[in-house]
Amino acid sequence: MTFLQEVVDILLAYIVESFDRETKVIDFHYPNELLQLNNWELQHEPATLDDILISCRATLKYAIKTAHPRYFNQLSTGLDMVGLAADWLTSTANTNMFTYEVAPVFVLLEYVTLKKMREIIGWPEGRGDGIFSPGGAISNMYAMLLARFKMFPEVKEKGMSSVPRLVAFTSEHSHFSIKKGAAALGIGTESVICIKADECGKMIPADLERRILEGFVPFFVSATAGTTVYGAFDPLIAISDICKKYNIWMHVDGAWGGSLLMSRRHRWKLDGVERANSVTWNPHKMMSVPLQCSALLVREEGLMQNCNQMHACYLFQQDKQYDLSYDTGDKALQCGRHVDIFKLWLMWRAKGTIGFEAQIDRCLELSEYLYNKIKDRDGYEMVFDGKVRWRPSFRGWSGVAPVIKARMMEYGTTMVSYQPQGDKVNFFRMVISNPAATFEDIDFLIEEIERLGHDL
Amino acid sequence: MTFLQEVVDILLAYIVESFDRETKVIDFHYPNELLQLNNWELQHEPATLDDILISCRATLKYAIKTAHPRYFNQLSTGLDMVGLAADWLTSTANTNMFTYEVAPVFVLLEYVTLKKMREIIGWPEGRGDGIFSPGGAISNMYAMLLARFKMFPEVKEKGMSSVPRLVAFTSEHSHFSIKKGAAALGIGTESVICIKADECGKMIPADLERRILEGFVPFFVSATAGTTVYGAFDPLIAISDICKKYNIWMHVDGAWGGSLLMSRRHRWKLDGVERANSVTWNPHKMMSVPLQCSALLVREEGLMQNCNQMHACYLFQQDKQYDLSYDTGDKALQCGRHVDIFKLWLMWRAKGTIGFEAQIDRCLELSEYLYNKIKDRDGYEMVFDGKVRWRPSFRGWSGVAPVIKARMMEYGTTMVSYQPQGDKVNFFRMVISNPAATFEDIDFLIEEIERLGHDL
Repeated sequence: MTFLQEVVDILLAYIVESFDRETKVIDFHYPNELLQLNNWELQHEPATLDDILISCRATLKYAIKTAHPRYFNQLSTGLDMVGLAADWLTSTANTNMFTYEVAPVFVLLEYVTLKKMREIIGWPEGRGDGIFSPGGAISNMYAMLLARFKMFPEVKEKGMSSVPRLVAFTSEHSHFSIKKGAAALGIGTESVICIKADECGKMIPADLERRILEGFVPFFVSATAGTTVYGAFDPLIAISDICKKYNIWMHVDGAWGGSLLMSRRHRWKLDGVERANSVTWNPHKMMSVPLQCSALLVREEGLMQNCNQMHACYLFQQDKQYDLSYDTGDKALQCGRHVDIFKLWLMWRAKGTIGFEAQIDRCLELSEYLYNKIKDRDGYEMVFDGKVRWRPSFRGWSGVAPVIKARMMEYGTTMVSYQPQGDKVNFFRMVISNPAATFEDIDFLIEEIERLGHDL
Repeated sequence: MTFLQEVVDILLAYIVESFDRETKVIDFHYPNELLQLNNWELQHEPATLDDILISCRATLKYAIKTAHPRYFNQLSTGLDMVGLAADWLTSTANTNMFTYEVAPVFVLLEYVTLKKMREIIGWPEGRGDGIFSPGGAISNMYAMLLARFKMFPEVKEKGMSSVPRLVAFTSEHSHFSIKKGAAALGIGTESVICIKADECGKMIPADLERRILEGFVPFFVSATAGTTVYGAFDPLIAISDICKKYNIWMHVDGAWGGSLLMSRRHRWKLDGVERANSVTWNPHKMMSVPLQCSALLVREEGLMQNCNQMHACYLFQQDKQYDLSYDTGDKALQCGRHVDIFKLWLMWRAKGTIGFEAQIDRCLELSEYLYNKIKDRDGYEMVFDGKVRWRPSFRGWSGVAPVIKARMMEYGTTMVSYQPQGDKVNFFRMVISNPAATFEDIDFLIEEIERLGHDL
């Protein structure tokens, strides 16, 4: 217990430091350097508890401070104290989501929370199904799996050789997990048809319909609500009309943008989501729930169970004393499943729905602020003039952003991501999901980019 | 910070209580009852921090004490203080395994630990590849995916319709995740051929060879090292000879039994594992690392990357300043990936290899002790007379075990799992992986089963 408390003291100090703007976001070292800086090797003999505390300190010293107000590098940033406390409790409870028997409270909380999320999507009385999965890529893979099973249930026993060639559709700006899922599920990446996006990154419905008519068996459309790079929202109503017309499963990948459903001001961007058959929504992104927390919501009840169940009799005994519908494990692809629900549930209790709404509205306000500062600023160029998220591009040469980024990491002052997209050279992709960020941090970021890039 | 410390105080008290034999393992309530016992609903308005502390206490009150010395219900039991501290640190660092950029230390520790695990398997100089995945089922699915890609790399782009009908083989006692994986990957459960097991639950190699010769394209054999119900170890050397002869990928599902590789006394049970192409090994089971911690180890370098990579340019930029081989995310099925490595690494440092060895040897010693107590005891019948793990069966009626189990949970005194297997009626499956369990706890369990079942 003394040992645990000592670790807690180290962690509390680290948290205080992480929120301090005077602290570096990162104390960067190259891999080979970092390997030398400490003895990370695993030994035959035990270490002392003092050595273990030293290891904890070393690990944190070289970690990225993802809670830092100037950390903008990923879609998941920030650190919520209630979420963190909930995650510590989860680790302490150290159990598994597969049965009510071993996780009674967590299973009920998952039930309560998934229902609430389905109500927010707009499905009648929150009916339907769902699961928390290890990340948005797996949630998207679930959706594709369900769509295939819905159309051809025999695929479960007989495999893809029993069905005609299936094709899936998603926009050219969609997340790579759609193709990754298709490769894994035996559909093949060539059967994922990339639909053209407009200059703002939104899928063009007319192009979707055109490609659907090209042949094979269309079974799955993945519309994106909040694309990874542009933050664009595909036109869900138009897409749902097409899906309905051709009887195709409509999935909405809202890993990033799904959280806007919590905001009365911004949820119109997902109008039509209630027509979807399935929705991916990652509370670990814009809602700042600690990693990982990703939900797949499904409109049809019972389908997940039928698609994935294998009736393992050592786990899902049919003669248990309680209501077996709470043994949710057989609808998962996983056997053991980490408890990802408690941190979301506890944060939701602490903030209320209105707390999440305020947090999300604030992120979009900061984003608007950044846009207005950048749009006519010398040295920047907007990659596109969208109204959702924006990214400054620093001059026109593809080598600029990587150099500035490398300098950011060496100075450790801030972190933001960059990439090329299509014919556009490297540009900064600015993401605001960090509840600790302020207008001043946005100002700082712009000045820092200019300072680090002044000689380029 | 005060709030976090208050939660820590609640958790420390819970931990002390969990190890106390006078405490109940579970304060059992039926689902509908538990839903009434507390207000679990999500609200529009925020709760106070005091309410949040009450919610934490309520959650723990109805949780299963998986650290309790008399909790034998699953393959994952117990709670290690260093592992727990490491998990708290992981939550605090709140980052993602996909790139060195955002998880430099954790990526290096994964590299160091996977190499060490491959050395222990016996691959030359620990060469090869691997990943920590969200559980054994996903690790096994990875193995099947890699085996398919190795034989038919075109499947990634063209899907299963481009390849002949593939068949996989595993014993009738293997884990259900092999079939679940086959269903998901578009192979189909009917293409998973179940090989006969002997009376101890070990795969019969002659039956494997016979079924391989029946036709189609055999691409994958999953041998089990430590089956879920009997704890049997398939004969890996004989199986590897057959796999070599017919050029089939040999996978070893050592989710449960892989940890015996740490024990000089018991590792012979996995002789031949070094001939495998891939191995699943879950340190969250017999090594008592907090959930989840599952590794897939792969003999061939580079294969995972080729099989799964999608080159997402927003994440895996090719013009970063550091050695890109440390950006391990593109070989995963997931995009974001939870940090599961630190708890294993820190426990390994704290115990040393010899500490894990002692812990595992002790579990097997307790198991031997149970076997000797039960084998001639009145009222019990051994389901089989294996030498690895044993399970007492209480009389011959399938309703006995469920009733005793339900009573165990109502009294909350201990928990052990039961199930039928093939033509054998419900029997208790005794699992010892809890480092807190003693000889006296084994005595208690037997007496408790007799007490709870005396009127049946």
